[in-house]
Amino acid sequence: MRGAVIHAPGDVRFEQLDDPKIQQPTDAIIRTVLTCVCGSDLWPYRGLEPIGGPHPMGHEYVGIVEDVGSEVTAVKPGQFVVGSFATSDNTCANCRHGWQSSCLHREFMSTCQADYVRIPHAQGTLVATAEHPDEEFLPSLLAVSDVMGTGWYAALAAEVKPGATAVVVGDGAVGLCGVIAARELGAERIIAMSRHESRQKLATEFGATDIVTERGDDGVARIKDLTDGIGADSVLECVGTAESMQQALHATRPGGNVGFVGVPHDVQIAGEELFFSHAGLRGGPAPVRRFLPDLIDRVLAGRIDPGKVFDLTLSLEQVAEGYRAMDERRAIKTLLTP
Amino acid sequence: MRGAVIHAPGDVRFEQLDDPKIQQPTDAIIRTVLTCVCGSDLWPYRGLEPIGGPHPMGHEYVGIVEDVGSEVTAVKPGQFVVGSFATSDNTCANCRHGWQSSCLHREFMSTCQADYVRIPHAQGTLVATAEHPDEEFLPSLLAVSDVMGTGWYAALAAEVKPGATAVVVGDGAVGLCGVIAARELGAERIIAMSRHESRQKLATEFGATDIVTERGDDGVARIKDLTDGIGADSVLECVGTAESMQQALHATRPGGNVGFVGVPHDVQIAGEELFFSHAGLRGGPAPVRRFLPDLIDRVLAGRIDPGKVFDLTLSLEQVAEGYRAMDERRAIKTLLTP
Repeated sequence: MRGAVIHAPGDVRFEQLDDPKIQQPTDAIIRTVLTCVCGSDLWPYRGLEPIGGPHPMGHEYVGIVEDVGSEVTAVKPGQFVVGSFATSDNTCANCRHGWQSSCLHREFMSTCQADYVRIPHAQGTLVATAEHPDEEFLPSLLAVSDVMGTGWYAALAAEVKPGATAVVVGDGAVGLCGVIAARELGAERIIAMSRHESRQKLATEFGATDIVTERGDDGVARIKDLTDGIGADSVLECVGTAESMQQALHATRPGGNVGFVGVPHDVQIAGEELFFSHAGLRGGPAPVRRFLPDLIDRVLAGRIDPGKVFDLTLSLEQVAEGYRAMDERRAIKTLLTP
Repeated sequence: MRGAVIHAPGDVRFEQLDDPKIQQPTDAIIRTVLTCVCGSDLWPYRGLEPIGGPHPMGHEYVGIVEDVGSEVTAVKPGQFVVGSFATSDNTCANCRHGWQSSCLHREFMSTCQADYVRIPHAQGTLVATAEHPDEEFLPSLLAVSDVMGTGWYAALAAEVKPGATAVVVGDGAVGLCGVIAARELGAERIIAMSRHESRQKLATEFGATDIVTERGDDGVARIKDLTDGIGADSVLECVGTAESMQQALHATRPGGNVGFVGVPHDVQIAGEELFFSHAGLRGGPAPVRRFLPDLIDRVLAGRIDPGKVFDLTLSLEQVAEGYRAMDERRAIKTLLTP
């Protein structure tokens, strides 16, 4: 089969690779129907995360089951499946609490920009749809496997409640999906922080009621202007830098909550400042598996359309161009078709 | 009148001071019935917080109203009142959300180890009891004004739920009150981390089901042994050091919550570690005013007896000895009678 391999910053190649095989009785092999490039893939691509040797890339996928190990009974060959970027047995103590992305047997997927993918812990990781979904739903189902699931978690971690004011920091695919989540959870006012016209437009389409273009202290001042001077009930931090985390904390009212889903890079939180902010803070890799059945239903019912975050579609063999387009911010998110 | 004044680390004196007077129409003057020394008073006493010039001390009080300003109608002279260490107008946007300790007009009380005290924003800060409480309840009502209110907030911030497992880090007065709060909120298992026999005994009396004497990594390992290997649902951090915060975070299961009420001193939280912990985190000065009516009721109904944290009673003029006894850990908490 063929798949993407990163060799060095800026150097992603489309190469011939060995076909994946069942290695454990808990594995499944899927044929990739759609995959894509994630904002987090840009960290190593930009040289901001060590790469080590050449290795495959990609952790988002929907596909058709090709083969399953002897212990996999929940899905079977021929079924269309959606999974999470983090595998989970869905039976351990953390999974039982709904924190499948802290599964005691968790593995992070990393070989999905390819024709075929081996899914560890397939029984607890994959969710099959009742039938093969219509073509129009496929990008949104793919989005559910990561960015929509992550935006959903950001909104839950920020404790968005009906009638609340929510702020979304970050206008990448996850932030935009966070807008959808805040709307679905009943936020009355949704303030998207964005300075890119095309992203502002999509945020508004997804349910944002206000756009704030300022950043840093000016951005926080604008949020306060819009929230009785005290800050928002819920803030979704969807970037992962020290600056965005500060902006999120300062935009939150005392007693409000920050959900942070951008993997923090060089972020230190001052204990005393957090203390006096009275803000609640929860982050982490989203337990997407918990949300999959619900989010798949919302997609298939036509309630949410997170697939709109894909504004560039390429064939899988053009994966290198897919990275470049996102790196240069010519695309929000690149969809790849094997 | 007479009151405590700190001059330098280790140097608290009992001095003649001017009687407080109504300065604003929102003030009240109370005659102190009971006051006490707080664990947080030990930070400047130990030279760990700057003192600047000599200044009065104390922020815990119950008393009898002597005089009120023209805008104070909620309490009147002769009434017995309990207040919070933080004043609040109880009408601003933050107060309306229940975050009175972030009141836009907040002042931190700091003159309460004295015969008389001026209470700013008395209308929103003080709660009067229906009648003068029996003597036996007075220490517990005093505890409600700070340590019990703070322990209560720690348990709420840690989201203690019926049936939960709660860990309390810190066996000072606040931690011990946190045990009471966890029990009242329905925790099934309450693990107190303490290596002092008298405090262990009081923790057990207050509802702790397990005592862990180990600290640091060993302490965390013991907590994991007691919690299916994953950590506790709720952890109350009642110390405020970098070590205790680490211990609290590491003892929390993914999806669990840390409530931190020890004012953090030189604490930095690594964003990436917090991210992957999946722990929720909320701290701050407790919004005691929100809890006062409920906690006063629980005391007067005999449900809770947080006054037991006072294991040394001195007359107010012996205040210097009260500090010494706590500094040398001869006392958990010193009650002072004017």
